Amino acid sequence: MGLDPDVRRFPLEVQAQDDAIFNFCKSIVDATARMACAFKPQIAYFAALGAEDQLEAVCDYIRQTYPDMPIVLDAKRGDIGATAEQYAREAFERYHAHAVTVNPYMGFDSVAPYLEWKDRGVIVLCRTSNPGGSDLQFLKVDGRPLYQHVARLVAERWNRSGQCGLVVGATFPQELAQVRAIVGDMPLLVPGIGAQGGDIEATVKAGRTASGSGMMINSSRAILYAQPRGDENFADAAARIARETRDKINQYRFTPS
Amino acid sequence: MGLDPDVRRFPLEVQAQDDAIFNFCKSIVDATARMACAFKPQIAYFAALGAEDQLEAVCDYIRQTYPDMPIVLDAKRGDIGATAEQYAREAFERYHAHAVTVNPYMGFDSVAPYLEWKDRGVIVLCRTSNPGGSDLQFLKVDGRPLYQHVARLVAERWNRSGQCGLVVGATFPQELAQVRAIVGDMPLLVPGIGAQGGDIEATVKAGRTASGSGMMINSSRAILYAQPRGDENFADAAARIARETRDKINQYRFTPS
Repeated sequence: MGLDPDVRRFPLEVQAQDDAIFNFCKSIVDATARMACAFKPQIAYFAALGAEDQLEAVCDYIRQTYPDMPIVLDAKRGDIGATAEQYAREAFERYHAHAVTVNPYMGFDSVAPYLEWKDRGVIVLCRTSNPGGSDLQFLKVDGRPLYQHVARLVAERWNRSGQCGLVVGATFPQELAQVRAIVGDMPLLVPGIGAQGGDIEATVKAGRTASGSGMMINSSRAILYAQPRGDENFADAAARIARETRDKINQYRFTPS
Repeated sequence: MGLDPDVRRFPLEVQAQDDAIFNFCKSIVDATARMACAFKPQIAYFAALGAEDQLEAVCDYIRQTYPDMPIVLDAKRGDIGATAEQYAREAFERYHAHAVTVNPYMGFDSVAPYLEWKDRGVIVLCRTSNPGGSDLQFLKVDGRPLYQHVARLVAERWNRSGQCGLVVGATFPQELAQVRAIVGDMPLLVPGIGAQGGDIEATVKAGRTASGSGMMINSSRAILYAQPRGDENFADAAARIARETRDKINQYRFTPS
C-alpha cells in the first residue's frame, strides 16, 4: 500500500484539518492494513510541504499499531558512500523504515552503507514503470538491456547478505518474468498497477516465485483517491479497492501460467 | 563550495550550540563567499538529523546576504513524473534553490517536471567520482560507456530549454574531456577534488570551455574541515583552503593544455 499523500486530492474536510497529511495517512493505514503486506510512504510528498514531522508520525503510528507490518520508505536515494551513510540514517534511524528504495546509477559503494544496517532491506531500482524508464534501462549492453545487468549485478554481487530486493514495474510483465528468471527468489517491489495501468493477472504470473510469493505489488493513487460509492467515505472506498486488489493478486498466485 | 555539515566533525564549541548546523554553515558561507561561484548544500546531512528547518535557514541566509550567489541543492533525486513534481517543489519552492542535481536512471519524464521551472537549473548525474561509479556508468553501449550516452541524451534531447548541466567527477580528467567534447558549452558540476583526490590542473584543463569557463568545481570536506594553523579558527582555515583552491582553479583556466 503506497502512501503518496497529495493534499489537493484529499476530501475537503480532511484538507481543513491541522496535520491533514498525518490524519489522511492514518485513516488509509487503518482502512487497508488487513489487506496490505507492507506500507510504502513516498517521502517526496512530505518533503514538498516540509511535513517530515508528519511522516515521522505516520511511521510511528504504523509501528505501534501494526508492529508486524513492514515499512518501505520510497526514497530512491543514490549518492557517494559518505552521503549514503546519512541517507541510511534518515531512512532507518529517523523513520525506522524496514527497507528503503535506492538508485543503482552510482554503483555498489553508493548502496553499501545501507547494507551495514543488517536487519534492513535495500530495494534497488531495476526496471521502472514510467514511460521514460526505457531511456537508459533499455540500452543494450552486450546484447541485453541495462536493467538485466542491474538485476544480475544485484543478485550476483551486491546481495552479499540477502538484504536486497529489486524494483520492477508491472507495466512490462515479460520483463518482470526475465528479471525473476535472473534473480531466483529475491523479493521484488512491483509498482505500476492501478493508476499506472499494469495488469494484475499478467503481473502476478510473471513475477511470482515457485511458492506463489516473492512480490510486493504496490498500488497508491488508485486506492488513496478511490471514488466513494453510496454512503462510503474516502477510507471505506480505499478499503474496498484495496480488498479487490488483494483478492485479484491472491487469485493468481497459484494458477497455471 | 559544498555544504556537507557533519556535526561530529564540527569544533566542539559549535557542536554545543543550538542550531549548530545553521551556525556552522553560516560561518562557512561568510568565510568563503568571496571565493565561491555557488553554494551546494548536500541535503542528506540535514535530513539524517531532521534538520530541514536549518537547511531552510541556511538557504534563506545565503539568498538574503549574497543575493547573486547561486544555490545548488545536491539532492540527486530521481522518480516518476508525479513524484518528481513534488521533489521539484521541495528544491525550488521550499529551499528556493537555483538548481538541483538529479539522477538519470528513470529517464526523461523523471527529469521533465524540474524543467517546468523555467528559471532554474537541472544538473543530471553523468560520470560520478566515487569508486563504484564505473559499475554502471562504464558499461559499454554500442562500444561507448553509458555515461557518454547520458551526456549525449541530455545535450541532444533533454536540454530543450538550455536549463541542463551535468555532474562529471574530477577523478577521471580524460573522461571529463570526452564529456566536454560531447556537450559543447553546457555547464558541468565537477566534484571530486579535495578530499576525493582529483587533480585541479588536470580537471580544469580537461573540463573548461573555449572561454575558460563552464565549470563549477566543488570542494566540500577539504574546506569545511580544514585543519586550523596558528591562531586560525575553523572558518579562517576554511577561507584559506577555499582561497588556495580558487586560485589554483583560476591559474589553469587559460593556460595551454
